[in-house]
Amino acid sequence: MEYSLAALAEVAGARLEGKPSLIIESVGTLADAHEGQIAFLSNPKYRSQLSDTRASAVILDEGSLSACPVAALVADNPYAAFARVTALFDMAETPEPGRHRTAQIHQTAEVHPSAAIGPNVVIGPRSRIGAGVVIGPGCFIDSDCVVGEETRMVANASIYYGCHIGRRGVIHAGAVIGSDGFGFANDAGRWLKVHQLGAVVIGNDVEVGANTTIDRGAVNDTVIEEGVKLDNLVQIAHNVRIGAHSAVAACVGIAGSAVIGKHCAIAGGVGILGHLEIADRVTITAMSLVTKSVKKPGMYSAGVPLETSERWQKNFVRFKQLDNMARRIRSLEKELEELKKG
Amino acid sequence: MEYSLAALAEVAGARLEGKPSLIIESVGTLADAHEGQIAFLSNPKYRSQLSDTRASAVILDEGSLSACPVAALVADNPYAAFARVTALFDMAETPEPGRHRTAQIHQTAEVHPSAAIGPNVVIGPRSRIGAGVVIGPGCFIDSDCVVGEETRMVANASIYYGCHIGRRGVIHAGAVIGSDGFGFANDAGRWLKVHQLGAVVIGNDVEVGANTTIDRGAVNDTVIEEGVKLDNLVQIAHNVRIGAHSAVAACVGIAGSAVIGKHCAIAGGVGILGHLEIADRVTITAMSLVTKSVKKPGMYSAGVPLETSERWQKNFVRFKQLDNMARRIRSLEKELEELKKG
Amino acid sequence: MEYSLAALAEVAGARLEGKPSLIIESVGTLADAHEGQIAFLSNPKYRSQLSDTRASAVILDEGSLSACPVAALVADNPYAAFARVTALFDMAETPEPGRHRTAQIHQTAEVHPSAAIGPNVVIGPRSRIGAGVVIGPGCFIDSDCVVGEETRMVANASIYYGCHIGRRGVIHAGAVIGSDGFGFANDAGRWLKVHQLGAVVIGNDVEVGANTTIDRGAVNDTVIEEGVKLDNLVQIAHNVRIGAHSAVAACVGIAGSAVIGKHCAIAGGVGILGHLEIADRVTITAMSLVTKSVKKPGMYSAGVPLETSERWQKNFVRFKQLDNMARRIRSLEKELEELKKG
Repeated sequence: MEYSLAALAEVAGARLEGKPSLIIESVGTLADAHEGQIAFLSNPKYRSQLSDTRASAVILDEGSLSACPVAALVADNPYAAFARVTALFDMAETPEPGRHRTAQIHQTAEVHPSAAIGPNVVIGPRSRIGAGVVIGPGCFIDSDCVVGEETRMVANASIYYGCHIGRRGVIHAGAVIGSDGFGFANDAGRWLKVHQLGAVVIGNDVEVGANTTIDRGAVNDTVIEEGVKLDNLVQIAHNVRIGAHSAVAACVGIAGSAVIGKHCAIAGGVGILGHLEIADRVTITAMSLVTKSVKKPGMYSAGVPLETSERWQKNFVRFKQLDNMARRIRSLEKELEELKKG
Repeated sequence: MEYSLAALAEVAGARLEGKPSLIIESVGTLADAHEGQIAFLSNPKYRSQLSDTRASAVILDEGSLSACPVAALVADNPYAAFARVTALFDMAETPEPGRHRTAQIHQTAEVHPSAAIGPNVVIGPRSRIGAGVVIGPGCFIDSDCVVGEETRMVANASIYYGCHIGRRGVIHAGAVIGSDGFGFANDAGRWLKVHQLGAVVIGNDVEVGANTTIDRGAVNDTVIEEGVKLDNLVQIAHNVRIGAHSAVAACVGIAGSAVIGKHCAIAGGVGILGHLEIADRVTITAMSLVTKSVKKPGMYSAGVPLETSERWQKNFVRFKQLDNMARRIRSLEKELEELKKG
Repeated sequence: MEYSLAALAEVAGARLEGKPSLIIESVGTLADAHEGQIAFLSNPKYRSQLSDTRASAVILDEGSLSACPVAALVADNPYAAFARVTALFDMAETPEPGRHRTAQIHQTAEVHPSAAIGPNVVIGPRSRIGAGVVIGPGCFIDSDCVVGEETRMVANASIYYGCHIGRRGVIHAGAVIGSDGFGFANDAGRWLKVHQLGAVVIGNDVEVGANTTIDRGAVNDTVIEEGVKLDNLVQIAHNVRIGAHSAVAACVGIAGSAVIGKHCAIAGGVGILGHLEIADRVTITAMSLVTKSVKKPGMYSAGVPLETSERWQKNFVRFKQLDNMARRIRSLEKELEELKKG
């Protein structure tokens, strides 16, 4: 693949500083790029790498331009401009439209002729597969599902009956959508299954990471709104709602009926208890446990620092004494007060 | 699907208050139900929703009956009664018995004629599949396995050789049972594989969540007793034993040879170290790390509260000073005592 | 399977104390073994079980030999000797070389004749599968991949395009290698996909656990060096590098561009933030969050102890007062000092 710098500038929506006919063959990092590559500078932390870069061109903002020793694409949001450029250099092949001869597609399913249905795919009764959809090897789509236009399911992913996936989505390998919510009624010590009668509804432009699981609703649906990005190994329980354009990093677990706002950023390993509400534009840092609703936008954290195990052992016992310590401080304050008085 | 309220009362084991011939078409929540739907009230927190419900009938307990504006099914345990009713409205289709022509079943495997073996299923030598079993698309069952009567494997799940699954179980999509335990001997800095010679034995009425993994034992077996419910993305290491009727929520990790009692409830994201014992009827709240055996029934917790990142930063540094703080309190107490003495 | 004790001694690299012709039929634990079985004693904690063992032979070190009531294999590293012995008793069957008739192998793929390609396997254009490789049912290997000699993929695992797996590896069921890194540029509130142009490169002798996910690099590659062992449900983000012979237990999440040293041991549930460096020979205990680089070898921990929920509640509120408590201690110290002075 080869593009002129002028072509990249147009795709990136960036101003070109340099020779328009310069040929760019691939993408590199500022530190490692070589001739023929384009790099980007977004995080000011890496600005010192700019002067030594061997890239042929760099995507950057106005403020960094004067320090750039090579051609540049200047953008207000260099990372977004870079994102647009990466699309051109993506080597992933798009399969040809059509149905692989090993695909098992129920006669009542509707599959758009422009969709590409791969080997060993199984599609159940009455499911509808939109234009330009790609369903990779071993994917299972049960009955009464909808997969919207241009959505791609990579491989070995499973969608249970009655779930709706929007347009332009990506469902990575091994993801499971619509599995039963974890609902059981305790009946004299035994668990009775509460059959999960809702489904999963996923909006447009949603990405679901590898081996991520999204449970169907108990009575109503589990809802992932448009533009949400879920990383790998995320667990979304029944009746959760995730607001539009929120991003959820890997290994997050969100318990039943929690409602996450729009434009939230949930970092890796976070746990959110059930029936909570998280406001719009909330950021939660890694591995925090959220036990109460978060009502205001902002950044929230929990967790304790890493130490050598030896030092940590000493503090570990103190955690159990915290309430006791607080009471002793209070009592010291009182005694000192009395001593000073008299 | 339509049922008379009288029919539902019988299934639910509940007393009918209202018109027996009332037709119920589906299930709703107290807040969102409309005419023709049945809802339930189990958690007193939602009792205020009862007066405004538009459901045609509500499953509830005796204490809530007087406040119910519509027909009712009265039960001591309304949630269990509701669970029984949900089974009637479950729309999941049960596949026809028989072997899909693409299924690869070894000639020495025994598959009951009433079992339904789906597309692209692979069943290895000498495995035995019981009556009424449903094996969904892409599932792999290696050699010498047993899948008990009426168990359902949904899709793309894998069972390694020699594992036994009981009756009436559910194995959700992507679950892996019998993978190698994480056993390696360090030999001068390199890891030598300890071949995992045990298997996994799962009792009756066990549910295994989507993408959950259960490792085979190193020498003896990993054991999941009857009635256990495992949520999604749970990790059960080699030689763990989970006691009957315990429930394990999503994203829990249980390390090797830990023994969990009966009727335990392990909330999401909990970690349990290896070789520990958890007594019967222990509840552990979300994301707690269990580093010691728990010998008495009861509820246990760990973890620190979520705060704004700004406030949390301040406390974060203090965690490392805890032991120091405790010593300074002790020393203040001593000095004050001396000062008071004279 | 039957072996003479002499044969086992040779495989184990151990000194035989006892009758060379003694027949060993299987492996047992010190506590549960019966006649015809060989057990091992590695952890001194279990030495008390030695006198009562009914095993026919025990693998142990010189120091335990005098207390052993039966035949023995004496080794400096009994657990490593045991590991070598387990290989002999592994009952997992190795499939015959050849391509299952349902395998879909692209005509441009190169598959060594000694490789065993199972049912419903899909192998894309230009991928190369080495000698003695075993690819189990339902595995998907996209285009331009390399799977090195004698590597085994168990079932339903997926490898995206362009990834390289070394020799003698094990990829457990459901693992996903080469999925897109979680890279999105925020463009006025919407997420633009940063196409992930790197791949995953895995060295020789690496084991990847069930349902573990390893993302492809954004620009450069994600790298897992030789001898690394990854347990189940581990998440490796884009551009992570894991040094040779490190072991990563289940449910660990490692964020983008983190660099882990060689010979590290990362316990279950640990979270490591992005762009950090962990030195060689670092051990991190379970469920610790690593927020800064760790520059020295050693053992590190974080986390708070489990308590009854009642006691924990009391301490929970104190966590938020920690900074306040520390300031009050400081101020008490000052006041007391002044009081003593005057």
